[in-house]
Amino acid sequence: MEVDEPVGLPKLSRVAVCGGTHGDELSGVYLVREQLKQSKRKEADHEEPTPVLMVLSNPRATQQCRRYVDTDLNRCFTRSVLDGPTSDTDPYEIIRAKELNAMLGPKGSRGAVDLICDLHNTTANMDLCFIAYSDCDWISLHIFKHLQRQMPDTPMRFIHLDVSNKESYSLDSVGKHGFAMEIGPQPHGVVRSNIYATMKVGVQHMLDWIRHFNSGSVFDGGFVDVYTVVKNIDYPRDGETHNITAAIYPSLQDRDFCLLHPGDPLFQTFSGETLRYKGREPLYPFFINECAYYEKGIALSLARKKSVMIPAIRMQTDTEERACDWSFTSEEEE
Amino acid sequence: MEVDEPVGLPKLSRVAVCGGTHGDELSGVYLVREQLKQSKRKEADHEEPTPVLMVLSNPRATQQCRRYVDTDLNRCFTRSVLDGPTSDTDPYEIIRAKELNAMLGPKGSRGAVDLICDLHNTTANMDLCFIAYSDCDWISLHIFKHLQRQMPDTPMRFIHLDVSNKESYSLDSVGKHGFAMEIGPQPHGVVRSNIYATMKVGVQHMLDWIRHFNSGSVFDGGFVDVYTVVKNIDYPRDGETHNITAAIYPSLQDRDFCLLHPGDPLFQTFSGETLRYKGREPLYPFFINECAYYEKGIALSLARKKSVMIPAIRMQTDTEERACDWSFTSEEEE
Repeated sequence: MEVDEPVGLPKLSRVAVCGGTHGDELSGVYLVREQLKQSKRKEADHEEPTPVLMVLSNPRATQQCRRYVDTDLNRCFTRSVLDGPTSDTDPYEIIRAKELNAMLGPKGSRGAVDLICDLHNTTANMDLCFIAYSDCDWISLHIFKHLQRQMPDTPMRFIHLDVSNKESYSLDSVGKHGFAMEIGPQPHGVVRSNIYATMKVGVQHMLDWIRHFNSGSVFDGGFVDVYTVVKNIDYPRDGETHNITAAIYPSLQDRDFCLLHPGDPLFQTFSGETLRYKGREPLYPFFINECAYYEKGIALSLARKKSVMIPAIRMQTDTEERACDWSFTSEEEE
Repeated sequence: MEVDEPVGLPKLSRVAVCGGTHGDELSGVYLVREQLKQSKRKEADHEEPTPVLMVLSNPRATQQCRRYVDTDLNRCFTRSVLDGPTSDTDPYEIIRAKELNAMLGPKGSRGAVDLICDLHNTTANMDLCFIAYSDCDWISLHIFKHLQRQMPDTPMRFIHLDVSNKESYSLDSVGKHGFAMEIGPQPHGVVRSNIYATMKVGVQHMLDWIRHFNSGSVFDGGFVDVYTVVKNIDYPRDGETHNITAAIYPSLQDRDFCLLHPGDPLFQTFSGETLRYKGREPLYPFFINECAYYEKGIALSLARKKSVMIPAIRMQTDTEERACDWSFTSEEEE
């Protein structure tokens, strides 16, 4: 292969867009509902259906406008949970995770859908983020680069969770490729027109890119900034009650992706004291004051930024015998 | 009485500040917790205790970080609920409302505390608001005027719910005087330092004013703008599923208290259509896109603004036999 020869990658035939994985993150809920309504209308009018699977992931939590009913669905897609024994007394989300894995996976198998885009909202001021388990999945990175170019007024970041495929826990890990599309700030349980519109446009550009890819277009290589998560920081808490004793410092609030330096103010206690960042290395904060992470013990996450070179790509032709860029172990074969 | 003679009003001996009436509105929760902690410390140090009753209104909902467990506590303080029969199967908040009424009331009786300030947050961009059932309660209006003067950088409005004392439903209606102090925008389940600080300063100025009043200071009269609620508007909804089919229009979002004119855009449907305000009268919108009101069928409230003249006041002396400015029916006497 010559240096400038585009990398050939398999066609993305089956694509799923999921909303309501967290039932109170409403942009995805209303986006999926609207698309399902349009599909119904198209079907009634005998029009060509949209070739994308739209999924409302957690209908019971969505009905109650809560993140989850029994347990966080988006932590249930690990190998151990999906392969674990099934019981009538399983929490609702464990049952639902296995259903979704049967529908969109099985995770890690040849039968899994080619790509899952899972729609999320955050109360943090993060604009539009892709969150993925790989920093070398050329498909996700190329889609991200495409959105960056098409939506120049929307700040956009690519977050990399450095977790093995076995330990990966979120719905998007069930597809051959996948990422969460996370947009904020928006309070959970609220839908804001601007956030909804950004998500809708982002999904449209993603589907456009996939259509072009599947029709044989060649995409130039280039560079993408990737934020790899280094660690999480919890709120200061009362030793006895475990209640938080401080809030995010005013000058840090809403400053997601602005470099945090050693000694910078981090928290303001409820009695007025300032607590500072004691790390040795400047890092990029994000998920600052995300509502759903109080219970997970995360006040903010910190990441290191690097520039990743991505190659030119195109869809591989039928005659190419090049193996897929993912591998299967024999027991995962269907 | 001469025109300029200050109106004499009874001393405010017993004052309650309540937080966590809605368990996920966190500024009040952490403010009350912090004050209770300070009181404990003062007690241990044999210092003079703060002469204010600090109350965590809905501990069970606060524990779960939810608005309520069974039903909205802040709709339970009507005569019919408080005087209704008691049963073991009553929703938790009904039981708790009766406990709070016994502690701070009984509502409408001479035994009730003199003033209740109930702390709330909203996801709407409302800055600091007082919400009260009267537009001629000189105590609440004077406290409001004091805060306006002391906190010139904080936009502040006085909202009047035109509901009879019998029908009044919120915790603050249990005191002889009372109001909700509502501050936003803040997502429910989140605490933001700036909102917490505004609430803390607001409460401090209120308590300062009460101390001055109780020590005999005379307060000049003047004018206060009062927003009287005229009506609420619901989201457009699907006839079958009752799901909302539109979000607040982008140009209206966060524009609480900016006059809405007939024909102005109100909603944007999820398919992209614009729906306009069909009222005949320009009115002031507020509680625009409040998270907790989706289930109540309120997308926004609309108010008429008027200027209310308030008289000069001072505490009435022991020798003054002037009757209180509230009345009691015989069956409400203790």
